[in-house]
Amino acid sequence: MPELLRVTYTVQCGVGEDPRAKAADIAFEQTVELPGDCVSRPVTEAVVGRVESVAPVSHGAWRAVIAYPVAALDGSMSQLMTLLFGNISLKAGIAVREVEIPGALLARFPGPALGVDGMRDLCGVTERRPLLCTAIKPLGLGSKRLARICREFALGGVDLIKDDHGLANQLSAPFAERVARCAEAVAEANAETGGRSVYLPNVLTGGPEFERQIHLVQESGCRGVLVSPMISGFDAVAAIARTSGLAILAHPALAGSYFHAAHGIAPAVLLGQVFRLIGSDGVIFPNVGGRFNFSEETCRAIAGALGAKLGGVRPAFPVLAGGIHTDRVPYWLERYGPDTVYLVGGSLYRQGDLVQATKCLREVLATR
Amino acid sequence: MPELLRVTYTVQCGVGEDPRAKAADIAFEQTVELPGDCVSRPVTEAVVGRVESVAPVSHGAWRAVIAYPVAALDGSMSQLMTLLFGNISLKAGIAVREVEIPGALLARFPGPALGVDGMRDLCGVTERRPLLCTAIKPLGLGSKRLARICREFALGGVDLIKDDHGLANQLSAPFAERVARCAEAVAEANAETGGRSVYLPNVLTGGPEFERQIHLVQESGCRGVLVSPMISGFDAVAAIARTSGLAILAHPALAGSYFHAAHGIAPAVLLGQVFRLIGSDGVIFPNVGGRFNFSEETCRAIAGALGAKLGGVRPAFPVLAGGIHTDRVPYWLERYGPDTVYLVGGSLYRQGDLVQATKCLREVLATR
Repeated sequence: MPELLRVTYTVQCGVGEDPRAKAADIAFEQTVELPGDCVSRPVTEAVVGRVESVAPVSHGAWRAVIAYPVAALDGSMSQLMTLLFGNISLKAGIAVREVEIPGALLARFPGPALGVDGMRDLCGVTERRPLLCTAIKPLGLGSKRLARICREFALGGVDLIKDDHGLANQLSAPFAERVARCAEAVAEANAETGGRSVYLPNVLTGGPEFERQIHLVQESGCRGVLVSPMISGFDAVAAIARTSGLAILAHPALAGSYFHAAHGIAPAVLLGQVFRLIGSDGVIFPNVGGRFNFSEETCRAIAGALGAKLGGVRPAFPVLAGGIHTDRVPYWLERYGPDTVYLVGGSLYRQGDLVQATKCLREVLATR
Repeated sequence: MPELLRVTYTVQCGVGEDPRAKAADIAFEQTVELPGDCVSRPVTEAVVGRVESVAPVSHGAWRAVIAYPVAALDGSMSQLMTLLFGNISLKAGIAVREVEIPGALLARFPGPALGVDGMRDLCGVTERRPLLCTAIKPLGLGSKRLARICREFALGGVDLIKDDHGLANQLSAPFAERVARCAEAVAEANAETGGRSVYLPNVLTGGPEFERQIHLVQESGCRGVLVSPMISGFDAVAAIARTSGLAILAHPALAGSYFHAAHGIAPAVLLGQVFRLIGSDGVIFPNVGGRFNFSEETCRAIAGALGAKLGGVRPAFPVLAGGIHTDRVPYWLERYGPDTVYLVGGSLYRQGDLVQATKCLREVLATR
């Protein structure tokens, strides 16, 4: 019996629309891109998805499960994403809710090279406390000033110090210069404190420049990197997960475009499964109650998918962000448990003294 | 006076929400990612967007124009996309409607290397008729069979013969084998007819594998390629537009995720401006009346953006797809004019004899 990729969609149907026909249309559109009567039986059996079930979920909405033969796949995330939602992204009222990936296919993806345990080792955090992450900002400051901020955060004991996501290769702090200075500043602070803060430059580009910047990151002695899979490409990230040895923190930039209830890809699938499979050791997403719109249920689902058993794939850290206030950290600690990263930015900056603000927050985390 | 990137958003506001505050929030979120009171005045002036106007457009919806200093940008599409919609994709009720790119920034993007005129030269189409494109399919056939289909389309006189978008690197027709056989088949048919059909393999991957497959495409003697910017990455495509010499046909896979009226990026911005700037010589999109959901207005806007004057950037072909029926081609010819590519697939397959079906359609196009 062949292994199957099982995808659960919700499909919206207007009056007179047949949900079974819509599901069958998805199965053909996402594989052979031809109507059923133009495709031979052997080809249909080999690669076209089979509609396993269609059931109503609410007024006008149906739940359809389609099982695709693995012969329709090639083992890359580019092609899996295309099969999941490529063409049907252009049709209304279809959303990918769940994806069940067979073992043979799972083994084709790198998954996190470090995962939760490897990230703890990297930061020298042996106790089971959550990790603390922050961002150097804002865009517009020079490299020297950003490096000083790095230093202060490292002195305060932040585990992961990432570039703000807006810091790319602007003239105010060009990539190569910024990375060199910030890496040096963190290394010096670590040497002074005996700490193990890790600086993660933001690599926000694609193509050969992506690889060039990753190389610069490695050369500067950095042990991790911030990437944006929706912008640099899924398989560009997968490639560095396979080969670079860097810890990979994934940013959800642009991903929110997919998160509509009736259309798109569920956050737990895209940020939880896809980002983990391509090798993210930590996945940033906006926690409930911050300045973005995720519900508590959505956040739990993403965190759940990042940590769930998934063949031999290592778990990845959920990285809670988007306006995490230092005062609220104890509240979230109760809910998310120790295998979590707290990305706190603005709330530290607001306190003025970054070293002190960070030390206070580190104490809150350490008591867990 | 500094050059500005001017972005027009629509912003949905609920009762009690202040559209001016929401617009200001976008201007800060997309640059410094800090509230205004945490950012110094020089930094604010240097990189934060300025809200130029906020005006109501309909009940609960406002039109906000924000001008960003070019110092906030680094000249890459990765970073421009991040600034346009990266973080705010995770907020509800914000859509990018129009983007006005200053000349200094335009010059940083490759734009189409061939453009409309270069594509005509490539295909040897000196008369001002629309071009004909088709797709070899379905997924599941072997390379030999796909090559035979290529041959038939080339004998029939199709200008552009692309891989179906679902053909990646599956075992049924592995990439290297398929490209070699199909390229050979088209070259042989061209030699027989004296035609200039161009075969465009589908490169659906990312990272170093993207470059490896592009290299294989070049080695096989192909003159063009089909790419998916939303999957392989914007700057991966821009890099090959700069250096490969290949004609670039861009597929909209996954792009539909962005096309919600109240959230996302307008199709004319994403498929019209962004895809053109990164170097697409032709951009595929589903025409109105096919099996997808674009309105005639949307299709016109995309085609308009692909052909509009844009500094020194060459115009790109709109490639009408998504269920173009051969019978309807004369109708569309009246509407889109000669600088258009018709991508006709299923409607040719349905006729059985591909050579004859293609010849008939070519005659329809030739009379324009």
